[in-house]
Amino acid sequence: MPQDRFAARRDRLWRQLKAAGVDALLVTSPFNVRYLTGFTGEDSNLVLGAKLTVLVSDSRFEMQISQECPGLDVTIRSTTQTLTQTVADVVGRAKLSKMAFESRTTSYSQWESLTAAVKSLQLIPQADQVETLRQIKDAEEVAQIREAIRQAERGFAVLKPSLCGDMSEQQAANELEQAMRRFGAKQASFETIVAVGQRAALPHARPTSTRIDEAHFLLIDWGATNSQGYHSDLTRVLATGTISPKLEKLHGVVLNAQQQAIEAIRPGVAASDVDAIGRDVIAKAGWGKNFGHGMGHGIGLEIHEGPRLSRISKEILKPGMVVTVEPGIYLPGVGGIRIEDDVLVTRNGYEVLTSLPREFSLAN
Amino acid sequence: MPQDRFAARRDRLWRQLKAAGVDALLVTSPFNVRYLTGFTGEDSNLVLGAKLTVLVSDSRFEMQISQECPGLDVTIRSTTQTLTQTVADVVGRAKLSKMAFESRTTSYSQWESLTAAVKSLQLIPQADQVETLRQIKDAEEVAQIREAIRQAERGFAVLKPSLCGDMSEQQAANELEQAMRRFGAKQASFETIVAVGQRAALPHARPTSTRIDEAHFLLIDWGATNSQGYHSDLTRVLATGTISPKLEKLHGVVLNAQQQAIEAIRPGVAASDVDAIGRDVIAKAGWGKNFGHGMGHGIGLEIHEGPRLSRISKEILKPGMVVTVEPGIYLPGVGGIRIEDDVLVTRNGYEVLTSLPREFSLAN
Repeated sequence: MPQDRFAARRDRLWRQLKAAGVDALLVTSPFNVRYLTGFTGEDSNLVLGAKLTVLVSDSRFEMQISQECPGLDVTIRSTTQTLTQTVADVVGRAKLSKMAFESRTTSYSQWESLTAAVKSLQLIPQADQVETLRQIKDAEEVAQIREAIRQAERGFAVLKPSLCGDMSEQQAANELEQAMRRFGAKQASFETIVAVGQRAALPHARPTSTRIDEAHFLLIDWGATNSQGYHSDLTRVLATGTISPKLEKLHGVVLNAQQQAIEAIRPGVAASDVDAIGRDVIAKAGWGKNFGHGMGHGIGLEIHEGPRLSRISKEILKPGMVVTVEPGIYLPGVGGIRIEDDVLVTRNGYEVLTSLPREFSLAN
Repeated sequence: MPQDRFAARRDRLWRQLKAAGVDALLVTSPFNVRYLTGFTGEDSNLVLGAKLTVLVSDSRFEMQISQECPGLDVTIRSTTQTLTQTVADVVGRAKLSKMAFESRTTSYSQWESLTAAVKSLQLIPQADQVETLRQIKDAEEVAQIREAIRQAERGFAVLKPSLCGDMSEQQAANELEQAMRRFGAKQASFETIVAVGQRAALPHARPTSTRIDEAHFLLIDWGATNSQGYHSDLTRVLATGTISPKLEKLHGVVLNAQQQAIEAIRPGVAASDVDAIGRDVIAKAGWGKNFGHGMGHGIGLEIHEGPRLSRISKEILKPGMVVTVEPGIYLPGVGGIRIEDDVLVTRNGYEVLTSLPREFSLAN
């Protein structure tokens, strides 16, 4: 991506930070570092202030930074210093007196070390400054997410007809990941869930050696990370045999809950209301207690980011947000249904970015 | 794994903690939670004390916990509470007055919330209590690491003869990962590095569309995560054409540095000395400035854990530790050589767990 994009993001952040009356912000989240600089490695912090912008890293990443972030000031720590000691040096040399730090991604230990190392420095905990910017995707970011969705959907289109009874959950997950990579995905955006029958009652089931033909349906929750680090996240339930009327009914309720929630999406709506509208459909059908997780979450450089569509979310939807909508019903001993799509908040409403059919369809 | 294994680990930890005069430890590292309970999910904390052992999680993981941790006390947070609020409730109900917390994996924010939520509680930052236990692998853990190594080596044995000129770095990385999965690996233990020619000068190169035949050699740094979450980590450089005498020489120096470092491994030796012995070989050959990273690191449930073989490490080697030994020389514009193997510290010395030939060999 062009460098001016990152500089513009840093400017926007800095305008937002000025109000806090600090000299600088210490960015410790690797996702935020990437968002603000384009650097894709780890173990690096960004000191961003009115007078300086310095990426603090180590020699493993020196060449990579010069390639990914041309023109950016870099301090490479020596092998005899820790990252935090080097950050302290940078901050000390710049004679900063008041620095904000990302309190959700800075460990207590790092805060303690920094406090001890730079006595004259006042450290101000701040949360979500960069994360809030990241919630609103620009056109380029939406295009990246569309690509990650396309990779996931094409992978699924390869997997679906190749599913066979003697394949294990784990083999199916492997096939799906390999297929997504063939379409350009960097990797699966999280450990793919392939859960056969009863196992689908575990919202975060890890794939096992259970065979596809051990039940009449399977749940697949998967996504792709594209080359720029953007994510997609989908869930579908596929029939591999005759589906019981009860499961059919569950599926209908979940689909309805999802549809109601999606249709509620538009700028100005509370994220908690989108959760409530879908949750209400499930509760009225009598399965409220079997839907224990939130309605959805933002996706972007992280697979889970803001806004959260949940009961306790305080966020208001804005154009440019991209969220999953993923209600589910889980019945221990029977199975589970979850349907998940990715939705963009537009100026007037919403656009469903995913395009796979949501019906309870036969695997092949 | 049998539950008594986890109970025994918790007992060992608790004996170690008693000296600190605390009522409990709040375990926030997901790797430490897994080590102490067998639970493989995320977003969960363990409160471990003399009078209580409670895993605090959410409804997504309820069934999984009952399967993975039978008999363990669990508190599932409601959808209207955060994890930290639920931890605060558990701690408050148990009337704890002094609790240690893992300061490296607890964010400043979580510490702040917990401090505000339980006024009567004294919170004591503690680092590395569980990590120190984890450094010493028991026989079962060494077997898990051996399996992860076997998966990585078998994957490599499939990739090596199938490398061809028009394959990209990314395709080779995908093939390797797919092959490791066929041999039972859960996934690659980190993003596989396949770096052709000059690109091998980036110690953490990410695979690109560069073709294998764009240079005469390539560096591959890869590993497998086995089903129990244990990791392997190897690096080899393969020739795909005629190698320059300079590169041959570099390879010889790195191999010698690695061999000297490995032979220095035995109980009682300082981790920093193993680093120094290998580093000295490279420095004497005149390339000291081109080896910017540490000599190695522990592997286990995390791909990077203690002990660190580095200049600033203060650790002493003990039987049961498993470390990588991975010296490298990086010449911008030319390329890089790194050779990496996994080594167990035994009662009397060391055992190299990896078995692939280390010579500069032809790809196929």
